Amino acid sequence: MSTKGYNIVSLIRKKRDGHSLTRDEISYLIDQYTKDEVPDYQMSSFLMASFLNGMDEDEASALTHSMLHSGRVLDLSEIPGKKVDKHSTGGVGDKLSLILAPIVASYGVPVPMISGRGLGHTGGTLDKMESIPGFNVDMTLDRYQNILAKCNMVMAGQTEEVAPADKRLYALRDVTATVESIPLIAGSIMSKKLAEGIDALVLDVKFGSGAFMKMHEDAQELAETLVAIGEDFGKETVAYLTNMNQPLGYKVGNWLEVEESMEGLQGNGPDDVMEITHMLAGTMIMLGGKADIVEEGIEMSHEAVQNGQAFDKWLELTEEQGGDTSVLKDFSTYDHAEHSFDFTARESGYISEIDAYSIGMASLELGAGRKRKEDDIDPAAGIELHHKIGSKVEKGQPLITGYMNDKSLVESSKNYLKEAFTIKNEEPEETEMITHRVDREGIHTIGG
Amino acid sequence: MSTKGYNIVSLIRKKRDGHSLTRDEISYLIDQYTKDEVPDYQMSSFLMASFLNGMDEDEASALTHSMLHSGRVLDLSEIPGKKVDKHSTGGVGDKLSLILAPIVASYGVPVPMISGRGLGHTGGTLDKMESIPGFNVDMTLDRYQNILAKCNMVMAGQTEEVAPADKRLYALRDVTATVESIPLIAGSIMSKKLAEGIDALVLDVKFGSGAFMKMHEDAQELAETLVAIGEDFGKETVAYLTNMNQPLGYKVGNWLEVEESMEGLQGNGPDDVMEITHMLAGTMIMLGGKADIVEEGIEMSHEAVQNGQAFDKWLELTEEQGGDTSVLKDFSTYDHAEHSFDFTARESGYISEIDAYSIGMASLELGAGRKRKEDDIDPAAGIELHHKIGSKVEKGQPLITGYMNDKSLVESSKNYLKEAFTIKNEEPEETEMITHRVDREGIHTIGG
Repeated sequence: MSTKGYNIVSLIRKKRDGHSLTRDEISYLIDQYTKDEVPDYQMSSFLMASFLNGMDEDEASALTHSMLHSGRVLDLSEIPGKKVDKHSTGGVGDKLSLILAPIVASYGVPVPMISGRGLGHTGGTLDKMESIPGFNVDMTLDRYQNILAKCNMVMAGQTEEVAPADKRLYALRDVTATVESIPLIAGSIMSKKLAEGIDALVLDVKFGSGAFMKMHEDAQELAETLVAIGEDFGKETVAYLTNMNQPLGYKVGNWLEVEESMEGLQGNGPDDVMEITHMLAGTMIMLGGKADIVEEGIEMSHEAVQNGQAFDKWLELTEEQGGDTSVLKDFSTYDHAEHSFDFTARESGYISEIDAYSIGMASLELGAGRKRKEDDIDPAAGIELHHKIGSKVEKGQPLITGYMNDKSLVESSKNYLKEAFTIKNEEPEETEMITHRVDREGIHTIGG
Repeated sequence: MSTKGYNIVSLIRKKRDGHSLTRDEISYLIDQYTKDEVPDYQMSSFLMASFLNGMDEDEASALTHSMLHSGRVLDLSEIPGKKVDKHSTGGVGDKLSLILAPIVASYGVPVPMISGRGLGHTGGTLDKMESIPGFNVDMTLDRYQNILAKCNMVMAGQTEEVAPADKRLYALRDVTATVESIPLIAGSIMSKKLAEGIDALVLDVKFGSGAFMKMHEDAQELAETLVAIGEDFGKETVAYLTNMNQPLGYKVGNWLEVEESMEGLQGNGPDDVMEITHMLAGTMIMLGGKADIVEEGIEMSHEAVQNGQAFDKWLELTEEQGGDTSVLKDFSTYDHAEHSFDFTARESGYISEIDAYSIGMASLELGAGRKRKEDDIDPAAGIELHHKIGSKVEKGQPLITGYMNDKSLVESSKNYLKEAFTIKNEEPEETEMITHRVDREGIHTIGG
């Protein structure tokens, strides 16, 4: 942090006129904003100028630094080993954290995972955890470190102490049409992740109809910015660009996704979910120093599923955090939703598109998500897909089953489902799930 | 004003993404802002988006409309004749209003002139008026209309009732680096001028080193936007692009400019001042219906100076507004500044540049202007130029004389004067004072 003073209007003008601010200037602006010395109306003008004129990697890194140090930064140096976390830009049916964290932890790589709740069409990891009876994500920092030391993983909720400047800036961006800016998004993500006290980070940056970034090029730019910031902080950072043109896996909704995760941990996960999971987990194992190359990490990831050590790790953590492990071993003992309905194909043919946003919203309408922060969610509500892109279906055949405890929600959910499926006569082409890796050496094509 | 509601974030996003807002949308935004329903931080985000993405003429006109109707709009329909005013974008030594208003009024064209005070390097008409002992610019609206009906002119200060939304927006723009936007400037100027109850308007849009718009193309764009707005409100509007590459005339400072204006009204004005004055006055006489074409108006303007009717009109108004006319007839009776100093040429040659900004600031430093709104000014302080661009001077010859009552101000003034003059061996080329006229038919080249 600089002790120099700057004229705030001059800083806004500089950004307005397309110039880059120095690290000192960015720090001063954010620090003064956090101290209430810069009013919201000046910050929002700066945010809009940054939105329209962009920020370079140095500016994004300085922004991250200021937001990170506006709050508490955890020190996990007493816990041995390289701490590695994963962050996803969010998608429908994205339950990967629940599968990869125990895989990685089972090899002794500590995974300190602090997650958020869901808002809008994508679910939050915390909500999924809490659908397990008794699972507790609220804890003191002492307890957080104890669990991590003992289990090599921990799943906790964000506290008010982490990156308060990011919270204020995000709230301001939300009401001033300055959310969808790559450097601002990157700064927000990285300030929260770096506060966890990690040594390395794997990022799952999604593109496609169900992702925050619809365009591959935007996702790539975000991935590059995230990696640049991470490396700037001395944390090895690897990002993957992954396809979100349809929901991940077959199950959407909190408990339903826990079920699918447990299936994944026991070797019965859906192909798309497991392909990305193994790539991310393999990379984390490598970054944690337990494999020399990613390919070796991926093999170890498969092995941890096959030999049961990953599922065992999950059960161990669940017990540690107060959760009921019996429902994880036998889903039939869970308190499932009381009602269900089928949504059927209106014509015969190949499924060519499944709009993940519509599926996410249909699930939210059934009670699985929140429209506003203060809404309650129904852990058992959600959607099970019976088919994915490429499936041949007959008219009248069920495409999905919806689950809910409140029957009155079905109609609003069906309004979204009507828009969700596109059925055509031709079989669609297969798409790659993972297109590129971005790391400090640049961007690399994957698969193909 | 629309009764419809809009989502404010969506309106900001629309402007952010480069789209034009409808008139209803602009009205809603400004109306809600004036009612404190839209917070400053949303408005400043919108202003920055408008600054960077621009506003089309329809948007600028809708903005003007909303700001105009946020306050009182005078109704001068009881006063016969077409009311015509003049506005200048401001310049150093710009005393044209004091000369042209009585010329135009002397032909029975009512000139309802509401002016502001000076801030920064350019002086304000009100401050010049008040340098005449006893001259009172504060009055009720009844009195304002009475003076206008009686004298065909009035010189008054802005009241709080005129365009309050513009005042708030201007204050916000000032602290959010969103001042120098052509549509925002045009809306601000026109909302205040249209509130005067005028029927037609002449605009003096300056370009050059001493002007707000340095570039001719920016001045042209501003002129075109101003004319488009005026015509959109059904007021015939003519703008001239005039050169401000050096101060206008030889005198800068409040009372000094009154002196030069009185000289101008009596046929002894400087060429540059009188050339623009006659063009603007002739156009106003034409717009007021007293001449068929501008050329005829210009001839009438010359005549009003030669036959003394314009100076008589000024004396009549001064008496009506409580001013002392004796000092206007005999400058030696005025309470001049106690001290003066000469600033001399550091080399021999032709004066090739006189930086109007530096001269304006040097005059301000002597007490003629304000750095902050609450500063007092010294009416007698200012600068007299002995030479203008093109003059041949010898080293050591006085270039200007500075006048002030506070000797301690000389050094800071000289700091600006050092930068003001450029002397070269070659005689500089002559420049045109008025380059273009902009009216509803387009842009026309003048002179040359």
